[in-house]
Amino acid sequence: MLSVSIDDIRQAAVRIAPYVHNTPVLNSSLINELAGCRIDFKCENLQKCGAFKARGAHNAVLQLSDAQRAKGVTTHSSGNHAAALSLAASRLGCKAYVVMPDNTSAAKIAAVKSYGGEITFCEATMAAREKTVLAIAERTGATLVPPYDSAHIIAGQGTAALEFLEQTDGQLDHLITPVGGGGLLGGSAVAGRALQPSLTISGAEPSGADDAFQSFQSGTWRPQLAPNTIADGLRSSTGKLNFQIISDLVDDIILLDDKSIVEAMTLIWTRMKLIVEPSSAIVLAAVLNNKARFAGKHVGIILSGGNVDLSALPWNAGHNIPLV
Amino acid sequence: MLSVSIDDIRQAAVRIAPYVHNTPVLNSSLINELAGCRIDFKCENLQKCGAFKARGAHNAVLQLSDAQRAKGVTTHSSGNHAAALSLAASRLGCKAYVVMPDNTSAAKIAAVKSYGGEITFCEATMAAREKTVLAIAERTGATLVPPYDSAHIIAGQGTAALEFLEQTDGQLDHLITPVGGGGLLGGSAVAGRALQPSLTISGAEPSGADDAFQSFQSGTWRPQLAPNTIADGLRSSTGKLNFQIISDLVDDIILLDDKSIVEAMTLIWTRMKLIVEPSSAIVLAAVLNNKARFAGKHVGIILSGGNVDLSALPWNAGHNIPLV
Repeated sequence: MLSVSIDDIRQAAVRIAPYVHNTPVLNSSLINELAGCRIDFKCENLQKCGAFKARGAHNAVLQLSDAQRAKGVTTHSSGNHAAALSLAASRLGCKAYVVMPDNTSAAKIAAVKSYGGEITFCEATMAAREKTVLAIAERTGATLVPPYDSAHIIAGQGTAALEFLEQTDGQLDHLITPVGGGGLLGGSAVAGRALQPSLTISGAEPSGADDAFQSFQSGTWRPQLAPNTIADGLRSSTGKLNFQIISDLVDDIILLDDKSIVEAMTLIWTRMKLIVEPSSAIVLAAVLNNKARFAGKHVGIILSGGNVDLSALPWNAGHNIPLV
Repeated sequence: MLSVSIDDIRQAAVRIAPYVHNTPVLNSSLINELAGCRIDFKCENLQKCGAFKARGAHNAVLQLSDAQRAKGVTTHSSGNHAAALSLAASRLGCKAYVVMPDNTSAAKIAAVKSYGGEITFCEATMAAREKTVLAIAERTGATLVPPYDSAHIIAGQGTAALEFLEQTDGQLDHLITPVGGGGLLGGSAVAGRALQPSLTISGAEPSGADDAFQSFQSGTWRPQLAPNTIADGLRSSTGKLNFQIISDLVDDIILLDDKSIVEAMTLIWTRMKLIVEPSSAIVLAAVLNNKARFAGKHVGIILSGGNVDLSALPWNAGHNIPLV
C-alpha cells in the first residue's frame, strides 16, 4: 500500500486551487520536428514562485490545524521549496522559518525574503541544516515541512500531472518528469498510473547525481553522496517514501549529462521564449537523446521550474545581471 | 470608413486558426502588487515565430490566389515580420523573398533561414530596401506583403486582441499594446472598440521613437526620422492606414524611456519566467510609470514578442550566447 493515492491528489487539487496557477501546456513545431515526435510541455516554470513546489507547499500548510498554523512552519532548503513554503505560509497567515546554508546565492535569499520567510543561516552541511531546523522547531513549536519526503508534499506535486493529463485529454503515450527528491516524479507516477494505466512514466536524472537511477536499478534505496551537475534542483537524495512509489510505479529513469541539459535549455529559451532552469530542461534532453525510442510518440514533459540566477548561466559566467 | 472592420478580424481569426497558437493569458500576483492594479498579460511572445507577426503574415498569405502563391511573396524587414512571412509562406507552399539590410544581426538572419526564407541583402537604407524589393517583385512576380501598412496585416494582428478580450470575458478596463508600425495597435483598437465600446485603449511608444505620439497629438501623420531606442521593434514609422485607425479609435499614446523599458523587461524575465523583447516590455512600463492612473483597474497588456538576441541583452553586452 503506497503512502499517496489518487484520491489524495484529487483532494489536494481542490484544496490548493485558489492558491496556484493552472499552468498552460505549450508546444513548438520546430522542437517537434527536431525530436521526431509530438511533445507537450506542462509549464510549471510559470507556476507561483516559478516552480511546481508551490503545489506541495500549499497542500502541506493548508492541512495544518489553526493551533499549528499559529506556531508557524520550518524547513531547510537552498532552493525552490524554501520560497514556496514562505509564500504559502505568508498567504495563510503563518510564519515560515527557513534554514539556508551560508553558501546560498543572493538571488535565492532574495526570493525567500520577498515572500516573507525568516531566514536562519547555518553551515553548508546536511547535519548542520537538520540540527538548526530541529532547534527552531523546538524553540518555536513550528511544524517541519520537508521538501519532498512527505505524503502531503507528494500529493501536492502530483496535482501538476493530474492537471496535465486532463489538459491533454488522455492523448499522452509517455510522461517524463525530472527526479531529484522525487516529489514531482512520485506524485506524477501516482496520478499517471491511476488515470492512464498504460501510460509509460519515466524520470529524467543527471548522470552526475544518479541516486534515483542506482536505487531503481538495484531495488534498494541509496543516498546521493557527491552530486556533480549543473542541475542544482536535482542534487538531493531521493526521499524514501518517494523511492517506494517510484520503484513501484515508474517504468525507468533516463540519465542525461550536463552538456545535453544545457543544449535543451538553450533550445527552450531561444525557441519557446520560456525561462527554465537546468533541472527543467533535462526532460527535453531525455527526449532529444533518445529519438529512436520516442519516434512518432506523443510525449508529455513537465518543465519543473524557471528559477535561474541570470548571472550564473553557463553562457554568462562571471557577469552580473540586475535582478529585481 | 476605416480600412479594417471587426468582421475582417473575425474572418481572419477563423482563417489563421489552424496555423497559429491561441496564446495563454498569464498574470503575476507580485507584479499586480507592485503596480497596484490587476494586469493580464496576453503572451504573444509564445506565438509561432515568437511574435504576433505570425498572425498578420498568415492572414495575408492565406488570401492570395493559387496563381499568386505560385509566384511567391516578398518583403523587406530586419525583424519579426521577415521570419513570420517566411514561416507562413513555407507552410502554404509558397516562396518568400526577404530583403534584409546588410547590418542585420546573425540571429535574425538565422531565424529567416530556418523558416525557409530566401534572403537578399541590400544597403541599410529605406531607399535601397524598397528598390531591392521592387526589383524582386518585377523579376519573380512575387506579391509584396508589407509589415504593417496593409488591411490584411492589420486584421490579422487584430486577432490577438479579439482572443484576449474573449479570454478575459469582458473584464478589462484598459487595453495597452506597443506601437511601432501600428499593425498591432490598429487591429487591437478595431477589435477593442467593437467588442467593448467603453474600453480605454492606449499605445505604448518609446520616447526615442515617438512618431505615433507626435502624429496623434497633431492630428497629422508624421514619419519617424531618427529613432533612438533599445526597443528595436518600435523604430519604424507608423503606417498611414494604421495612423488613420489609431487617430480615430485609440485614447492615447503613452511614452516611455529606455530605462523604464529595461526595468520592466527585467521584471518580466525574473518574475514571470518569460523571455520578452524590449518592444514587448514597454507595455508593462506604461503601467508601472503611471500607477495613479491605473490604480485598482483591470489592465490587459499584449506582450508582442520574445525575439531577443540573447548575446545583445543590455545586461550581457559583448558576450556570445550559443544560439541554436
